[in-house]
Amino acid sequence: MGKKKDKHSREDEKDLDATRRASRDDVDEKTAKKTEGKSGKKAEKKAHKKAEKKLEKQREKAKKALANLVEAADPVDGAPESVDEAVEQVLATNAHAVVADVADSVASTFVGALRVGPDVRLADIDPSSTPGFTGDRDDAEALMAAAAPEIAELQERLYAESRDGEGRSVLLVVQGLDTAGKGGIMRHVVGLLDPQGVAIHAFKQPTAEERRRPFLWRIRRALPEPGMIGVFDRSHYEDVLVARVDNLVPASTWRRRYGQIRTFENSLTASGTTLVKVMLHIGKEEQGERLAERLARPDKHWKFNPGDIDTRRKWEAYEEAYDEALAKTSTDEAPWYVVPANHKWYARLAVQQLLLDALRRLDPQWPAATFDVEEQKARLADS
Amino acid sequence: MGKKKDKHSREDEKDLDATRRASRDDVDEKTAKKTEGKSGKKAEKKAHKKAEKKLEKQREKAKKALANLVEAADPVDGAPESVDEAVEQVLATNAHAVVADVADSVASTFVGALRVGPDVRLADIDPSSTPGFTGDRDDAEALMAAAAPEIAELQERLYAESRDGEGRSVLLVVQGLDTAGKGGIMRHVVGLLDPQGVAIHAFKQPTAEERRRPFLWRIRRALPEPGMIGVFDRSHYEDVLVARVDNLVPASTWRRRYGQIRTFENSLTASGTTLVKVMLHIGKEEQGERLAERLARPDKHWKFNPGDIDTRRKWEAYEEAYDEALAKTSTDEAPWYVVPANHKWYARLAVQQLLLDALRRLDPQWPAATFDVEEQKARLADS
Repeated sequence: MGKKKDKHSREDEKDLDATRRASRDDVDEKTAKKTEGKSGKKAEKKAHKKAEKKLEKQREKAKKALANLVEAADPVDGAPESVDEAVEQVLATNAHAVVADVADSVASTFVGALRVGPDVRLADIDPSSTPGFTGDRDDAEALMAAAAPEIAELQERLYAESRDGEGRSVLLVVQGLDTAGKGGIMRHVVGLLDPQGVAIHAFKQPTAEERRRPFLWRIRRALPEPGMIGVFDRSHYEDVLVARVDNLVPASTWRRRYGQIRTFENSLTASGTTLVKVMLHIGKEEQGERLAERLARPDKHWKFNPGDIDTRRKWEAYEEAYDEALAKTSTDEAPWYVVPANHKWYARLAVQQLLLDALRRLDPQWPAATFDVEEQKARLADS
Repeated sequence: MGKKKDKHSREDEKDLDATRRASRDDVDEKTAKKTEGKSGKKAEKKAHKKAEKKLEKQREKAKKALANLVEAADPVDGAPESVDEAVEQVLATNAHAVVADVADSVASTFVGALRVGPDVRLADIDPSSTPGFTGDRDDAEALMAAAAPEIAELQERLYAESRDGEGRSVLLVVQGLDTAGKGGIMRHVVGLLDPQGVAIHAFKQPTAEERRRPFLWRIRRALPEPGMIGVFDRSHYEDVLVARVDNLVPASTWRRRYGQIRTFENSLTASGTTLVKVMLHIGKEEQGERLAERLARPDKHWKFNPGDIDTRRKWEAYEEAYDEALAKTSTDEAPWYVVPANHKWYARLAVQQLLLDALRRLDPQWPAATFDVEEQKARLADS
């Protein structure tokens, strides 16, 4: 794989699974590369020293990270009461174990920090900011790794609950301009879930048939089954965004859609689907750099479309369209969260935590047995 | 999460993401738990000693693992030529870096070791064996972690290749009796892939409509799109397994299906879909234990169905049905692989490696730009 790695793009490197990044294998792997070829004993000593140094650095990072986390989080059982206590714990043990406890209280922080209301204006939200979180990339990835097992159990409970074909579901709606990082959310947040309980739908330009139907027709057909976590990569919101900016329909039509969307989403939540609506908010400069990278690298050309630049040229029009869409459809039943996305690591952590918070509020339970357990044990015994 | 963890089942613990297990964070986490509450400095020293010890143990493991791997693998560029050389490298660096190189040559080993022909008899295959691999759980998980980045790149290339809506695809067919570990394959092998490029279909008992149609009708509708990796959890093979054992159709009907399946699968491969057909082979005793565990634990009851025991009672009939299905449909175009599945960690590694081998043989390439790169760079510059 060594050779393969070289071919890897910077982004691929950045995109290594959060849990792997958070792991110290990374360190050793890098150390290993550097020391390859050197004579065994000497290189071993050297590799060891480096690992030592790195461990120290990690402790320092963890110390800082926890100070920040404890600041941000409301105190909960198991979480350190004070920065000092947290730091003590870090030094006494290691980052992960403590971060795991603190993590319990972080999700709700993101909900509070990212939810938007009728007065939202994207121009006023710094796409490089990290609301509710003062840690760095490593802290974010440690937190994501720490949250994964809880999310996994909640997802399995949700799935189990609807074994009989009836039950609740979650729908994660991901919106954002080109290069905002929707794909990264799929890979690194949705990718941490059990794929058996996930259904991703990417909505491209509507087909001829879809255009003949009401705009919600193709959306309804893609809704998650009971027990599932549905994920929309773009969604019915394109019908009040690109449809508006490019005048694909008369103004009277897209204006009517805000109300139709509210009604539709209310009926969804009423029938047991929890919506988590996320807008990945990047800056124009950052998008410029990301598009430039796609043009600079042959292994990224397939992701580029000349139309992306046409869209980019309508930046303000899209911002305006987003502002109105967010303002008119961020309801108590289905609120919008604007996630600053210039830092991919922040956006991924934020979306994971919003999903975690939604699952916690659902609090799914293992269903009771639909059979006589003792009777079945007896049957199994003589089978 | 600490509290949550307690609630976790043994299986949940076992089922932690392979990459996390392979990582040394695990070690630190465990060490941390043990030392929690102890006074900072002392506990730190202790935790450190333990990490040291564990590192030594890992080196020993790696040494053994590599000896085995190098034995099993055909030499390839980058892979150590000899056990001694491999061991030298391990001691000089660390397990992962070297395993990664050796891993390059392992996939093909599994293909050779697991493929079955017309003479296959499940009764002759030890479900506790680990063909092509003499390592243990840790070695297997280290290998899986090492292979993940290459699989990720191959999957993205496959996806990119068919950007224009035309292209090749992969179809992983997973068969096996209840508790054989199909779900674990989905979570731990398919779960390592980019979810955007994966489509899982679990085939349950056919619906009334599906029963009215030819048995391949629902299969055709679930085939992977170009660029995708489709995964079937059960498949059209149920129509020559349960359909035969439970006499759901006349013998003349299921007998005819072997030929229909061969024709169907040949047309699939001819049209660019690579099939990887995997049968997870567990022993009757092991199944007994797994069913008992489901009955013993309330958080597993939802997975149990009294019908599972009825099926279990027809063990020999299913073995017979499998033998004939495998024998008559293991073709050069779409061979069957029987994966001994009493050891979950082995089955997962084996299926991952079979998938990796299939992707390598496809050798997908980044598509060329469909636009003038320089022209677009210029447009971007003044956008």
